[in-house]
Amino acid sequence: MSRRGLLTGGALAAGGTVVGAAAVATARSEPAGRPPERTPVAGVGEAVEPFHGVRQAGIVDEPQAHAAFVAFTLRPGTDRAGLGRLLRLLSDDAARLTQGRPALADTEPELGLLPARLTVTFGFGPGLYAAADLDDRRPPSVVDLPAFRIDRLQPRWSGGDLLVQICADDPITVAHAQRVLVKDSRPFAIVRWVQQGFRRAAGAEPGRTQRNLFGQLDGTANPKPGAPVETAVWVTDGPDWLRDSTTLVVRRISMNLETWDLLGRTDRELAVGRRLGSGAPLTGTREHDEPDFAALGPDGLTVIPDFSHLTRAHVTDDRFRILRRPYNYDGVPAADGTADSGLIFAAYQADIATQFLPIQRRLAERDLLNEWTTPIGSAVFAVPPGCPEGGWVGQQLLD
Amino acid sequence: MSRRGLLTGGALAAGGTVVGAAAVATARSEPAGRPPERTPVAGVGEAVEPFHGVRQAGIVDEPQAHAAFVAFTLRPGTDRAGLGRLLRLLSDDAARLTQGRPALADTEPELGLLPARLTVTFGFGPGLYAAADLDDRRPPSVVDLPAFRIDRLQPRWSGGDLLVQICADDPITVAHAQRVLVKDSRPFAIVRWVQQGFRRAAGAEPGRTQRNLFGQLDGTANPKPGAPVETAVWVTDGPDWLRDSTTLVVRRISMNLETWDLLGRTDRELAVGRRLGSGAPLTGTREHDEPDFAALGPDGLTVIPDFSHLTRAHVTDDRFRILRRPYNYDGVPAADGTADSGLIFAAYQADIATQFLPIQRRLAERDLLNEWTTPIGSAVFAVPPGCPEGGWVGQQLLD
Ligand code: HEM
Ligand code: HEM
Repeated sequence: MSRRGLLTGGALAAGGTVVGAAAVATARSEPAGRPPERTPVAGVGEAVEPFHGVRQAGIVDEPQAHAAFVAFTLRPGTDRAGLGRLLRLLSDDAARLTQGRPALADTEPELGLLPARLTVTFGFGPGLYAAADLDDRRPPSVVDLPAFRIDRLQPRWSGGDLLVQICADDPITVAHAQRVLVKDSRPFAIVRWVQQGFRRAAGAEPGRTQRNLFGQLDGTANPKPGAPVETAVWVTDGPDWLRDSTTLVVRRISMNLETWDLLGRTDRELAVGRRLGSGAPLTGTREHDEPDFAALGPDGLTVIPDFSHLTRAHVTDDRFRILRRPYNYDGVPAADGTADSGLIFAAYQADIATQFLPIQRRLAERDLLNEWTTPIGSAVFAVPPGCPEGGWVGQQLLD
Repeated sequence: MSRRGLLTGGALAAGGTVVGAAAVATARSEPAGRPPERTPVAGVGEAVEPFHGVRQAGIVDEPQAHAAFVAFTLRPGTDRAGLGRLLRLLSDDAARLTQGRPALADTEPELGLLPARLTVTFGFGPGLYAAADLDDRRPPSVVDLPAFRIDRLQPRWSGGDLLVQICADDPITVAHAQRVLVKDSRPFAIVRWVQQGFRRAAGAEPGRTQRNLFGQLDGTANPKPGAPVETAVWVTDGPDWLRDSTTLVVRRISMNLETWDLLGRTDRELAVGRRLGSGAPLTGTREHDEPDFAALGPDGLTVIPDFSHLTRAHVTDDRFRILRRPYNYDGVPAADGTADSGLIFAAYQADIATQFLPIQRRLAERDLLNEWTTPIGSAVFAVPPGCPEGGWVGQQLLD
């Protein structure tokens, strides 16, 4: 569209066909040719997480305030070669955006300048291995989870061939990265589901465990940095498409605030086995006190109920623990005020079969918290190793 | 439910009826009796905006990062007396939560401890005056806007008898405040619509104008603090239910990223009349340079197109300006990647008829930006004066 066209109302008149090939060419070439101004500002916005490395980012680093989990279904034609092209493209986008540089064909380059600790983490669902004809390279535990009797799974929140987990401390940064990555995936894949979630804002409660919408401290007993997290999360041997990989389970779990809010504090604390205020186990006084599952109360019962979430979920051996990295979601309440709240429960572990599954089985079988929580979505992904500068995520598998 | 009941699986067995009257009583009384622990932390989370005052908060103060606009429809029985009870209740909730104290019957008191600059602002739609039988006290400009030919309004985003605008720099704080206020309004009103939006995170770009999802600096030409904002926003005389009041227009405006992204940078800048990078008018070099609408280019045309958004929206007399306080929204993209993005356009002004309407009329008539934006929701509210400690919002009108 020419300057003259704009001025004479051409844009207004032309309806849906305002844009010619020339305009497209301009949009594609300009951002690289004329980089937008950038005035450095300190603080939350400028903070950067590395993208390149042996392992992917967005896993063991401190969770950012905002996340979008975007799951794609591959289009029928997308084979191993197509996947290579797709992941080259998306890795390049991620490499730039995470460092505060606009993507190559970024049509809103100004929105690409504030990384705010942006990480982009790629996960491969079972369907991706099938599409690439590489089923023999799929980590065996990356298959749909077995059905649990507590499940009320909805297809609209379940499955996915490719996952992109986008996290940043700024919501505009997340929205922009999501837009860029979704656009560039269009020739290869369609959007299956998107789950947007949040935790405490950056700097709101530095160093504190976040709370979920039940008001509970959520994340206390995660494996600690160093050896425990190393052991729990990372695959340390095997072929190069497995070494330094991990796996991810994403469960959308609805939390029934209506019935939870009718429950007294004592009952809530018994259901989890921890205090609401301090997060301390019922046998302790501080958040990080070790729970004593054998301690008996005056009534002769264990102080931490045997069917409490804590007791059922507890694992001591780092080889069998999981790294939880959940986000809260809060949809629009119904007319009568019924909340649509819950957890985007995201857990990383080296192996789903020996780590996630036994815990989930115990919880599904008997966990007091089940009364107020319902899994409504489920998906599993292999999370391949990272890539060096110039490389792309998935290269070891697909190249 | 007794401790024994929990332990023997009573909760699991009892299905939907786990909670007896005793538990309810506990939940209602405990928060006040046993205040949760509070360890002060510095920063974003602790920052407080005053609630009590001559004018309501959440209007001229620096916009927080997150907002939920919650519109209610009054239940048939809710009359003037009922409205008084409702607003006493909600004002008390707001007075506490904004100061980092849990609400009176707060069932997640721990989520009430981090104000993060929380403000709760109440707006009265035309239906509220009718329900209270006080139509003669309704500011005359608080009526449904006339239809504009650009409108594609959906009932699900339009109208409302009572609005609660909840803003804070932390998304958990917003979610919790929304939950408390929705719950307490249940006997009196049903939820009509909720719009959740965001701007840059607190501390991400201190002192900078935020960007919308078109990548534009959005908010540059707002009336400045001091006399200009005083004149534009506040009603300064009249009876006590009008003095220090203002009015609010909330328009949900969808922004078509698909067609916008096909447009070249030059065309985008012409459409608005400002540069994308710096936000400077096309006749200037810095964001806050005064636009020169008369300046001609080498082609003999005005440098800032006559149908640009800037030219059409521009107002110089403070008495006729509006204070824009918009939030971005970003829903879930469609399967083909089509974005669901836009602006929760919120504008405050002393009088809708003489300030908002003439601008909106000029824009609806001819504004290049209309090609890529569509109003899909619309609502108007009177925003009553604030209240002193011990008082409640709406008191001057309803008591
Ligand atoms: C909405 C659903 C859920 C809620 C509200 C919830 C809440 C909690 C809370 C409050 C704690 C104690 C504090 C902490 O260590 O973080 C906890 C611990 C834990 N949860 Fe969950 N949880 C949920 C679902 C799950 C699921 C689905 C799993 C795994 C299948 C799981 C595994 C764990 C583990 C492993 C721990 C640590 C136990 C320990 O070793 O002490 N949770 N959860
Ligand atoms: C999605 C829809 C809209 C977008 C993307 C948009 C964007 C912009 C941008 C980029 C500017 C220039 C920078 C600034 O001063 O903030 C601007 C200015 C302005 N806009 Fe909008 N706008 C939208 C809708 C509206 C509506 C509905 C109104 C009022 C009816 C409005 C009134 C104004 C005014 C009064 C100015 C300042 C003009 C001046 O005095 O310089 N805008 N808008």
